[in-house]
Amino acid sequence: MLDEIVAVIEQEMKRTQIKLLWGTANLFANKRFVNGASTSPNADVFAYSAAQVKKALEITHRLNGAGYVFWGGREGYETLLNTDMKLELDNFARFLHMAVDYAKEIGFLGQFYIEPKPKEPTKHQYDFDSATVISFLHQYGLDKDFKLNIETNHATLATHTMNHELRLAADNGFLGSIDANQGDLLLGWDTDQFPTSIVDATLVMYEVLRMGGFTTGGLNFDAKVRRASFTKDDLLIAHIAGMDTYAAGLRIAAKLWKDQVLETNLKQRYRSYTQGIGKDIVENKVGFKELSAYVMNKNTLEPNEPGKQEWLESIINQYMIG
Amino acid sequence: MLDEIVAVIEQEMKRTQIKLLWGTANLFANKRFVNGASTSPNADVFAYSAAQVKKALEITHRLNGAGYVFWGGREGYETLLNTDMKLELDNFARFLHMAVDYAKEIGFLGQFYIEPKPKEPTKHQYDFDSATVISFLHQYGLDKDFKLNIETNHATLATHTMNHELRLAADNGFLGSIDANQGDLLLGWDTDQFPTSIVDATLVMYEVLRMGGFTTGGLNFDAKVRRASFTKDDLLIAHIAGMDTYAAGLRIAAKLWKDQVLETNLKQRYRSYTQGIGKDIVENKVGFKELSAYVMNKNTLEPNEPGKQEWLESIINQYMIG
Amino acid sequence: MLDEIVAVIEQEMKRTQIKLLWGTANLFANKRFVNGASTSPNADVFAYSAAQVKKALEITHRLNGAGYVFWGGREGYETLLNTDMKLELDNFARFLHMAVDYAKEIGFLGQFYIEPKPKEPTKHQYDFDSATVISFLHQYGLDKDFKLNIETNHATLATHTMNHELRLAADNGFLGSIDANQGDLLLGWDTDQFPTSIVDATLVMYEVLRMGGFTTGGLNFDAKVRRASFTKDDLLIAHIAGMDTYAAGLRIAAKLWKDQVLETNLKQRYRSYTQGIGKDIVENKVGFKELSAYVMNKNTLEPNEPGKQEWLESIINQYMIG
Amino acid sequence: MLDEIVAVIEQEMKRTQIKLLWGTANLFANKRFVNGASTSPNADVFAYSAAQVKKALEITHRLNGAGYVFWGGREGYETLLNTDMKLELDNFARFLHMAVDYAKEIGFLGQFYIEPKPKEPTKHQYDFDSATVISFLHQYGLDKDFKLNIETNHATLATHTMNHELRLAADNGFLGSIDANQGDLLLGWDTDQFPTSIVDATLVMYEVLRMGGFTTGGLNFDAKVRRASFTKDDLLIAHIAGMDTYAAGLRIAAKLWKDQVLETNLKQRYRSYTQGIGKDIVENKVGFKELSAYVMNKNTLEPNEPGKQEWLESIINQYMIG
Repeated sequence: MLDEIVAVIEQEMKRTQIKLLWGTANLFANKRFVNGASTSPNADVFAYSAAQVKKALEITHRLNGAGYVFWGGREGYETLLNTDMKLELDNFARFLHMAVDYAKEIGFLGQFYIEPKPKEPTKHQYDFDSATVISFLHQYGLDKDFKLNIETNHATLATHTMNHELRLAADNGFLGSIDANQGDLLLGWDTDQFPTSIVDATLVMYEVLRMGGFTTGGLNFDAKVRRASFTKDDLLIAHIAGMDTYAAGLRIAAKLWKDQVLETNLKQRYRSYTQGIGKDIVENKVGFKELSAYVMNKNTLEPNEPGKQEWLESIINQYMIG
Repeated sequence: MLDEIVAVIEQEMKRTQIKLLWGTANLFANKRFVNGASTSPNADVFAYSAAQVKKALEITHRLNGAGYVFWGGREGYETLLNTDMKLELDNFARFLHMAVDYAKEIGFLGQFYIEPKPKEPTKHQYDFDSATVISFLHQYGLDKDFKLNIETNHATLATHTMNHELRLAADNGFLGSIDANQGDLLLGWDTDQFPTSIVDATLVMYEVLRMGGFTTGGLNFDAKVRRASFTKDDLLIAHIAGMDTYAAGLRIAAKLWKDQVLETNLKQRYRSYTQGIGKDIVENKVGFKELSAYVMNKNTLEPNEPGKQEWLESIINQYMIG
Repeated sequence: MLDEIVAVIEQEMKRTQIKLLWGTANLFANKRFVNGASTSPNADVFAYSAAQVKKALEITHRLNGAGYVFWGGREGYETLLNTDMKLELDNFARFLHMAVDYAKEIGFLGQFYIEPKPKEPTKHQYDFDSATVISFLHQYGLDKDFKLNIETNHATLATHTMNHELRLAADNGFLGSIDANQGDLLLGWDTDQFPTSIVDATLVMYEVLRMGGFTTGGLNFDAKVRRASFTKDDLLIAHIAGMDTYAAGLRIAAKLWKDQVLETNLKQRYRSYTQGIGKDIVENKVGFKELSAYVMNKNTLEPNEPGKQEWLESIINQYMIG
Repeated sequence: MLDEIVAVIEQEMKRTQIKLLWGTANLFANKRFVNGASTSPNADVFAYSAAQVKKALEITHRLNGAGYVFWGGREGYETLLNTDMKLELDNFARFLHMAVDYAKEIGFLGQFYIEPKPKEPTKHQYDFDSATVISFLHQYGLDKDFKLNIETNHATLATHTMNHELRLAADNGFLGSIDANQGDLLLGWDTDQFPTSIVDATLVMYEVLRMGGFTTGGLNFDAKVRRASFTKDDLLIAHIAGMDTYAAGLRIAAKLWKDQVLETNLKQRYRSYTQGIGKDIVENKVGFKELSAYVMNKNTLEPNEPGKQEWLESIINQYMIG
């Protein structure tokens, strides 16, 4: 049955030449995942999850998927009173290692991703944010095999800006793919709205350009129309609105990048580290004693550079409405 | 002048036999730290901060301080538009390495701590939460030299429970010291209230008992009386209230720990990993293929253990008002 | 069919002597309420809702319900871009007037309630909080016919403490009934947890005692067990835990009230309004000129009373753990 | 001394022809207002505040101020445990009546405003949001004498959109003046940033156009440069950025209004209330019985109108980047 469905999809993909960005498995909706999947206190559920992801990997491989995403909606806890967090995290890592091993075995060369989210449906999800996931990957020796699939509304639920999450991942070589949506910052849950903020899309695309473009992954609308947008027109228009938003964002970001507006300002602002004592600092040539002596011998410190935040924000506006 | 003040303090400490838990330096209030201290774009400010911490370390050493804390109120950013986050984080790590080196040089053997806080005064502070700081320490080879000084109100500002922050730190060997206060979860800033929630204090002390007690550090009231509590009586009573709260919390936690209520429940809940397929999982003897075969051969999965959250919460209550 | 169900319920109520606190109708889950019920832009939906509430009132009356509650989960909006808020609020009031009229017609003498909630499922719900609902009732001449049914987790979603919502309602004669549950203040959605915080229950019961006890309504658990508490035991224990919590809260509140601890402090703190210039102020005998002259003639103002917040919080603790 | 300063200001105003939008008094920073000004438990502080506002009114009058604003930073409470909320609210109303009376006496015809804010510096401020203030004004018979001065960052701290606060005030005739700034929705305190979001400014100016423009008041930057924007250039640019933002917002809003894009959609969406049963509803001609009969006689309800949220958001974008 499943194989027949996959066969139909395979044919359709051939016909339309649409390719598969990534595959994933739903390890959270069914009741058996009530306490998590690979982090379940029930070893049988761990085993079941393994079987399910095994199958999902095989299908993804068969459909030439370019990647595979883990979003751990139940991989966390409701209360620490009943949770062995250490064992659960260890098991989570074991599970991911098994996935990597099995992918190698079947020849699946796609990129693995983890999608951070701080909470919802659980009170606490282990993949809280970029920093937490990167730390986890390093700690358990998974950093070579995984990148991040970062979602805007998950970033804001973790009280981060989306560009913070992207920057942190990119700076550490973990920015893999993006779930392009937007949340409502006055609400406390994942609204998964289609992205219509051009400024936000600009900042996202700027980070992508800054890291030299995607090497894996891409933009995926993990978005749904609002409940009241129930017509086919709404569905179509929502996708168009999202694509237009990101297209506009990319054009503005490309102009900003081409003109090196932000980068030029950065160079000026941090220039003190390219010469003199600053150069010594970044080249690890000095310690507290040398720096203390340096300061004692100076009458006045070099003045601070202003942050120019309002100017920078207005520059973005000018590039946007031209 | 400074040396004279230190001499007076030294004498008083001798007289009263009060010891110094940890020293620290204020690298955030003065205008020169407008863009950070060790993460300032101004190399001179980095140097100045080095001189200041050098002096603070010397004084802490002279006063036999048991530790030294870094709280980086300005070590972060106001906007990524003007920030070279990578360079700033690298410099932050350089600074901490210099501190460690200098401590060795002067023979200061106290414990170094970083105190996480997600924001305020900055929009984003690099020491966001326990996970972020632990990741940073690992990444920059500082994990042997630093532990965490965790503050309740900083935990909640990062949308974590305090016991989550403690548990994560303890499980990884980083729980060093605690700033015992409490916030107002309906407000979005650091209120630093004296702790009066006995349930919260119980959960904090439970984590401390669970890790075998403090090996360094201790409890510090990073708390202030409310603005309207301006009398000497208020100040005294606030300290008493805080101490009583933690004393009550410790007694309840000790009883809980002695009776192993939570631990016994945990053992029951996770018992499937001590035998059969679960044992094979934690001993890394199986992979996706074995687990898939195991599941296929089984008619029904073992049932899930209930979370019993309400029962556990009511148990804490019974131990409290018993 | 419906009548048969009601007949069975009626018999069971007779047999068990369990009485009906209040009735209500679900005007939010069905797709037809996608844009609201009485605030729908679709007049037919308004009409349908009227028919539904008409029937619900008849059943509530037949079952001798002591009240009827409106919780307007869809009475609000997703975006102001498509919303005629004025017309929707007018229609909401029209609907409630129709309900009052029909109740009179059928002789239903039970108390009407509105249950405030700021959001979820909608972005903005018109019954935001106590203040908003009281304002609405006054503005539309519904203040004689409605009281409030206040829920803890709805209060906290509106960033209020529960006792604030209760106090405001009680002071204005609108405190009717209480949905006793609790939320998770680190999460941004309605978790509807069974109440286990004894301190919070104490503060709730204190407000009830302060207003002289319920004259209508009562305590209702609008609570559900956590997803992982899926056994019958969990369900039973959760109800017991909730009842124990409120029983403990009531006992502590009763002791506090009997000893008049808070009230005595209040009298002392506000005593300046019972004599001299303060008395003149509350008796409306003075204006800016008299008060200005009074101040000009005084050398120093009477000192302020301290707030004693920490002392008051520790008093509650002492009454709790004795 | 004060009179001399006022004389200088008076001269400068004549010379520059700059007029005074509104006056106000600082009733929150000084320690005497620790427990509030007109809501202080200390009658002498009430009297002192009266004297201060009396003077402020006289100066505002002398300078031909077009209005007078009350922002009650301390008019609220830190904890209900020590607060007689009823007396404080009554006194607050008394104070405002005195102000109105005194203004009449001296012939000051300017508009009075209250500026809502939910919290900060207090835990709870009585002027929580538009709905709360409008309710208060009605309840205490102050609705003829006061309008609202609404600030963007205060709206968002109350978890409302700014346009919600404006719409509610405008619909009820209370929209007087606007504090044009913006907050950071990922932070929980009042950042008072210069407004640079063109979309937000568009929605603000749309509400102003919708109500027919300001009849009193205007736009005021209650904004400050970020701490790191410490140069004169920053200060100048921040003001320019704010003005450009609102100028752009006004132009876009004016085009939207001229084309009646939103209004045309509204008319279509709510057309069911202009005829048939809908018309009967808004003309109060029907009750539950008639509506129930109407529904029973209908086979199917008229279909719901979709919300078209994504389309409307993309329309705003098109008007913005055209």
